[in-house]
Amino acid sequence: MSHIPLPQAVVRDTVARALAEDVGPGDLSVAAVPAEESATAAIVARSTGILCGRPFAEEVFAQLGGARLDWLGAEGELVEAGREVAHLSGPAGVLLTGERTTLNLLQTLSGTATAVAEMTRAVTGTGARILDTRKTLPGLRTPQKYAVRMGGGHNHRHGLFDGVLLKENHLAWAGGLEPAVAAIREQVPHTARIQLEVEDLAQTRQALGAGVDALLLDNFPLDDLRTAVAERPGGVFLEASGNIHLGNVREVAETGVDGISSGALTRDLTSLDLSMRFA
Amino acid sequence: MSHIPLPQAVVRDTVARALAEDVGPGDLSVAAVPAEESATAAIVARSTGILCGRPFAEEVFAQLGGARLDWLGAEGELVEAGREVAHLSGPAGVLLTGERTTLNLLQTLSGTATAVAEMTRAVTGTGARILDTRKTLPGLRTPQKYAVRMGGGHNHRHGLFDGVLLKENHLAWAGGLEPAVAAIREQVPHTARIQLEVEDLAQTRQALGAGVDALLLDNFPLDDLRTAVAERPGGVFLEASGNIHLGNVREVAETGVDGISSGALTRDLTSLDLSMRFA
Amino acid sequence: MSHIPLPQAVVRDTVARALAEDVGPGDLSVAAVPAEESATAAIVARSTGILCGRPFAEEVFAQLGGARLDWLGAEGELVEAGREVAHLSGPAGVLLTGERTTLNLLQTLSGTATAVAEMTRAVTGTGARILDTRKTLPGLRTPQKYAVRMGGGHNHRHGLFDGVLLKENHLAWAGGLEPAVAAIREQVPHTARIQLEVEDLAQTRQALGAGVDALLLDNFPLDDLRTAVAERPGGVFLEASGNIHLGNVREVAETGVDGISSGALTRDLTSLDLSMRFA
Amino acid sequence: MSHIPLPQAVVRDTVARALAEDVGPGDLSVAAVPAEESATAAIVARSTGILCGRPFAEEVFAQLGGARLDWLGAEGELVEAGREVAHLSGPAGVLLTGERTTLNLLQTLSGTATAVAEMTRAVTGTGARILDTRKTLPGLRTPQKYAVRMGGGHNHRHGLFDGVLLKENHLAWAGGLEPAVAAIREQVPHTARIQLEVEDLAQTRQALGAGVDALLLDNFPLDDLRTAVAERPGGVFLEASGNIHLGNVREVAETGVDGISSGALTRDLTSLDLSMRFA
Amino acid sequence: MSHIPLPQAVVRDTVARALAEDVGPGDLSVAAVPAEESATAAIVARSTGILCGRPFAEEVFAQLGGARLDWLGAEGELVEAGREVAHLSGPAGVLLTGERTTLNLLQTLSGTATAVAEMTRAVTGTGARILDTRKTLPGLRTPQKYAVRMGGGHNHRHGLFDGVLLKENHLAWAGGLEPAVAAIREQVPHTARIQLEVEDLAQTRQALGAGVDALLLDNFPLDDLRTAVAERPGGVFLEASGNIHLGNVREVAETGVDGISSGALTRDLTSLDLSMRFA
Amino acid sequence: MSHIPLPQAVVRDTVARALAEDVGPGDLSVAAVPAEESATAAIVARSTGILCGRPFAEEVFAQLGGARLDWLGAEGELVEAGREVAHLSGPAGVLLTGERTTLNLLQTLSGTATAVAEMTRAVTGTGARILDTRKTLPGLRTPQKYAVRMGGGHNHRHGLFDGVLLKENHLAWAGGLEPAVAAIREQVPHTARIQLEVEDLAQTRQALGAGVDALLLDNFPLDDLRTAVAERPGGVFLEASGNIHLGNVREVAETGVDGISSGALTRDLTSLDLSMRFA
Repeated sequence: MSHIPLPQAVVRDTVARALAEDVGPGDLSVAAVPAEESATAAIVARSTGILCGRPFAEEVFAQLGGARLDWLGAEGELVEAGREVAHLSGPAGVLLTGERTTLNLLQTLSGTATAVAEMTRAVTGTGARILDTRKTLPGLRTPQKYAVRMGGGHNHRHGLFDGVLLKENHLAWAGGLEPAVAAIREQVPHTARIQLEVEDLAQTRQALGAGVDALLLDNFPLDDLRTAVAERPGGVFLEASGNIHLGNVREVAETGVDGISSGALTRDLTSLDLSMRFA
Repeated sequence: MSHIPLPQAVVRDTVARALAEDVGPGDLSVAAVPAEESATAAIVARSTGILCGRPFAEEVFAQLGGARLDWLGAEGELVEAGREVAHLSGPAGVLLTGERTTLNLLQTLSGTATAVAEMTRAVTGTGARILDTRKTLPGLRTPQKYAVRMGGGHNHRHGLFDGVLLKENHLAWAGGLEPAVAAIREQVPHTARIQLEVEDLAQTRQALGAGVDALLLDNFPLDDLRTAVAERPGGVFLEASGNIHLGNVREVAETGVDGISSGALTRDLTSLDLSMRFA
Repeated sequence: MSHIPLPQAVVRDTVARALAEDVGPGDLSVAAVPAEESATAAIVARSTGILCGRPFAEEVFAQLGGARLDWLGAEGELVEAGREVAHLSGPAGVLLTGERTTLNLLQTLSGTATAVAEMTRAVTGTGARILDTRKTLPGLRTPQKYAVRMGGGHNHRHGLFDGVLLKENHLAWAGGLEPAVAAIREQVPHTARIQLEVEDLAQTRQALGAGVDALLLDNFPLDDLRTAVAERPGGVFLEASGNIHLGNVREVAETGVDGISSGALTRDLTSLDLSMRFA
Repeated sequence: MSHIPLPQAVVRDTVARALAEDVGPGDLSVAAVPAEESATAAIVARSTGILCGRPFAEEVFAQLGGARLDWLGAEGELVEAGREVAHLSGPAGVLLTGERTTLNLLQTLSGTATAVAEMTRAVTGTGARILDTRKTLPGLRTPQKYAVRMGGGHNHRHGLFDGVLLKENHLAWAGGLEPAVAAIREQVPHTARIQLEVEDLAQTRQALGAGVDALLLDNFPLDDLRTAVAERPGGVFLEASGNIHLGNVREVAETGVDGISSGALTRDLTSLDLSMRFA
Repeated sequence: MSHIPLPQAVVRDTVARALAEDVGPGDLSVAAVPAEESATAAIVARSTGILCGRPFAEEVFAQLGGARLDWLGAEGELVEAGREVAHLSGPAGVLLTGERTTLNLLQTLSGTATAVAEMTRAVTGTGARILDTRKTLPGLRTPQKYAVRMGGGHNHRHGLFDGVLLKENHLAWAGGLEPAVAAIREQVPHTARIQLEVEDLAQTRQALGAGVDALLLDNFPLDDLRTAVAERPGGVFLEASGNIHLGNVREVAETGVDGISSGALTRDLTSLDLSMRFA
Repeated sequence: MSHIPLPQAVVRDTVARALAEDVGPGDLSVAAVPAEESATAAIVARSTGILCGRPFAEEVFAQLGGARLDWLGAEGELVEAGREVAHLSGPAGVLLTGERTTLNLLQTLSGTATAVAEMTRAVTGTGARILDTRKTLPGLRTPQKYAVRMGGGHNHRHGLFDGVLLKENHLAWAGGLEPAVAAIREQVPHTARIQLEVEDLAQTRQALGAGVDALLLDNFPLDDLRTAVAERPGGVFLEASGNIHLGNVREVAETGVDGISSGALTRDLTSLDLSMRFA
């Protein structure tokens, strides 16, 4: 698993926004609950999947003024439906106010981690990494990319600023593939690899000739993927992309590509079903 | 359709965050594109669904420094796969830098609007409104609730601050159903209706006796829904909830309930497939 | 008293702004006070009123780096002139720097709570609640509405987003009273009651006929208030408004209306006189 | 009048906060108003006072997306009850949504300006300036101090950072008056005058001997004020303070003091009564 | 040394920004370091200078989630090259992630403090204070002005809001020196001294005649400085400015001026060389 | 020159902060300038260097409410001492208020660009790029890295998130060079090159054997640099670092290394001398 740490500042900011939109000027429904009541509760998985989002859940209760969480499942662990994943105790009002925000964070990130884990499991042993993309939920890229890692996947570039991916239009406006690669190589930090999206083997060969560091092979037939793998020089990273799903990801992986990216992993979402049960 | 306006401040803030996470300190890949190049492009629907998010798309290019958008589809309109929904023109670098953020915003909101529209269509003529919930993507509640409206659905309360929904635990800590309802009625603004979640007909009758304004009938059999409809006094809003999907939503609606809520509409997401094609 | 909790995020933000505008780049006058000095002080009421704002006072010293507050009066308690309401101890520089911001927060909120408490006392036993309005000090709505609750009053809607109040112009542009009520009922969340502002008994009856949930009876003679009370169907909330003050609030309350709103409670302010006395 | 400009950043931020707390996720009541309706309205003074807050009103409609304001009264001008102070035209929904926030800003600042103008008028011809204090509404200091200027008053220091005012406790912890004055003179920017709060003539003379630049004469009898005026060296600013109101401010001013400060001007508030009338 | 306290809010905000720009969505390089590793390290001075920035360093590790700092040098102390100034212990990943941000803050502020200390030392015994200016690094004014104090220097006004400095163009647009001084005296808070920039002795005398409180003597020959000192009335502060450096600052100071300002102290920067050495 | 665009959001935020710290609650000194005065001015270079920061200067006046700038020098152009680089016209008060913030931004960024340009010129024709580091002024990294590009230099990684640079301690905690490289390669995005800091030729060879993509050769003798260049496989980027200055940078470049980094370029600062002259 990729252990790039999740910055605490991201956790604080994400939780503050989520609480603001749910709690706003105050939780009306807890007005009936005496302030001195304390309570215990459990977070329960109602479907099976990867647990993800623990630092966010802890931050919810820290920002609300305190409740205790004891985790019964590790971050990134597969938890079965029906299992308790955390115990909580604290003021009843705090638990009730924080319930939905906590679950929304956990269910969203666990949902993404679970989808990634399924893809990752499907390619076990092939050497191909499952990659995310920039097709993410607006405002949630860092949390989602963290969930990808917790699901056993790998991150592609985070955004436009930490990696180069030249597409058809970059090439067109830069005067063609070779000039584009040369210009970009000359200008960007040497710490960034130059990746190019290609559409067929001819363009693949042209790109390799221009000295790119990585290729995104878009919608290649399996045979063409195999050819590209066979022909690529050492050190060039090959990423397959385009309509890849659980049903075909393994045969793509077995072509020998280094990575397989899927926009659906972070663009679509089937949340993990979680609930909070009060004792 | 519900015409509650989307505040411009929400649009500005949502777009600023989305751009920050994608563009950060600068788009490396456009370094190869001459600054003086101008370009035209089209946003194309690759699947069929409801177009939603136009104000966000416009804001992306406003914040990036200017490009022109001409819409070929109305907000909330059903667009067929293959159709162009917008034309863009402006500096090539601006279009390239803004492409993904624009598409992410449109695909997310259009995806939600599309799911809502399918549910809404399924209950046409029944008088039941399709309702969202607080099970939303963290940080995106206002945009998502806007998308629900654009899909023909109706908003439930926005958060904990603008409506009351008493659940089992509120009742327990407040000393029972009647004391809870009395206490909450006494305390919250008179502008908020008091809604209660109930689990069976017995509790339904108890709640109606306590004078609640609305009920959430959780996982009721169809017969029990019909009984509740028959027995409820005028003015009490009945919301059905629990495992409702396209396959059974119409028969639930035909029981005569006033609203049907589904967490999946905003908790899960199948984005609308959109792409930007440069001319 | 209404126990809707005050969100901690509001407290943190309100205090941070108040400190920023008073302390800015640094307190010049404490430069003469040795950093190692510690001090004790007391907050003393110099006039009689309701104590309100304790969470804000505590946050001031938390953000400044620590001093201890021991409260001698409860939040919402009536304190007599001359009484000590809190003891403080900590670094002398911190107490001096935080003094004015703390007092400004307490005196403002206590002033509002005191005005509300006087109105509330005047209607004791009548069953009418004293209501606030949206006529508040810009940027301080949530703290002020909290002070209203601590003074024994009740909150009206917080803003435009959590309640409906149709006025003359909404009706005009929507094509009349009945179409406006029908349109708004169709569009807004079922959790919001529909309230209408009316100017005489004729309009009152028209509104009741249109099925509104609440009425704002603006500047009604007492007799007309009594008539409205007599005629209104069960469950319709009647709010009286317009030039209501301590001198006439009880006779208004005795007409049987459910609530009486007064813009002056939060629009005008007579601060509670408080000072900090160093030992 | 003091023409220190009001920074545009303060206007933008103050208005953004005020709109956020009133509009939040969206104005429900305008849902019944067709989006294409346009409207005209007038802001009318319902009591007599100083008009203040025009830049804030303009910013409200700029942030809401546009309406036109034509002012019929100048900033700082005395307007009579009944007079129209502005004409507005724009989308009906925008005018309705912005109405209350606009009025709240104008009524608050005009109220403060009006109170200041009354005090200022009372001392006309005496040479004494009416001064504000740091007893302000939390978060509104800069707007309120601007209103003081528009009312013809003068600003005291803005906060702890731009002026020195040594009080009893500063002296105590610094080892006495002379060491405190010496220490502070040595440490703070030469651009700040050193002012000291004194309680009687003996302390006044001690402070003058220590070379202070200004004195706050707290609760001095009129005779003692006259003595202090007679004895003070050229260039030392004398500020009278303590229970000064419209009834006694002129006799205080006639003692020859340079300034008279009153916490009530910004700590308490009687808003100017303004309303928006739609045509 | 000037002991004006550094507000904690400034420390928090400065560090949050510095961490955000360095850590962003996550530190890639620590992915190879096991999360459970703990480490100790020392911050070492590699050149000789004034240590400044301790509160900022502590805040870095507080925001990153915790490491312990034990300081071996006092804030404002001269530390020799080769000396350890702090010991750190905590999770290895946290120390590595925080290393550069910590050093950047310390090296920048220590660099400024060191430059100031050299100037201060050069004028020892003369009675002239070394002054900063508004020529600062954008966004870092408060930290830099704190560093000036830690280096033994004195702050001039912080910005445009806390002091008056009239220059040639203010005079021109205000209709001349006397009208400008009179107008500004009439308008600004009495807590601010009026300072004027002058270019020769003639203008100096004109300004003194107009009753200014302080003068900035720009690029005066030493003899003219001496004349100005001899002629100025008691209480008028004389600041010399213009091309003053270590080589000539003492002879300027010996003319008897009260302060000597140098833009280079905060406009230019030679950072103190510091490194972190892991044990 | 590297044409990575400077994001408008960075410009807006940097300028807003700089204005806030200088203007705060209001510019006192312009109170004497009639509001209706308009003025023209010129920005003049008083030393020779690279002009950098035009977008920031424009933003200053946009945020202050408008003045016109006409540039007489291109961004990144070498301007001679004495030359006018811009003409400004607008309200006199706006020009005076914005003067210092504008100059601070321009002088800081032009200073960095100038230092970089001198280094770049010194290596002309060698093929080595001049590189920045993460030793930057806190809060100003993106503007400074932009200035590096405008000076003809190249950016290294922006922060910890967009590139990998393993140092001695990463290796130690990861169990040695080979395990560290293997672990990091396995975990980080394939878009990031793996760079390692090495101290001698032995470690260089070990790192090359482990398959790193780039090396930072720290404090290598010239002969060792040449050996490393001779031995490195194609595609491995060699960066020289450590005590490199104008006096020795060319001989380092002539060894054949690909890049030369210098912390002093962004850590230290000699601002370009600029002034504003009013007509």
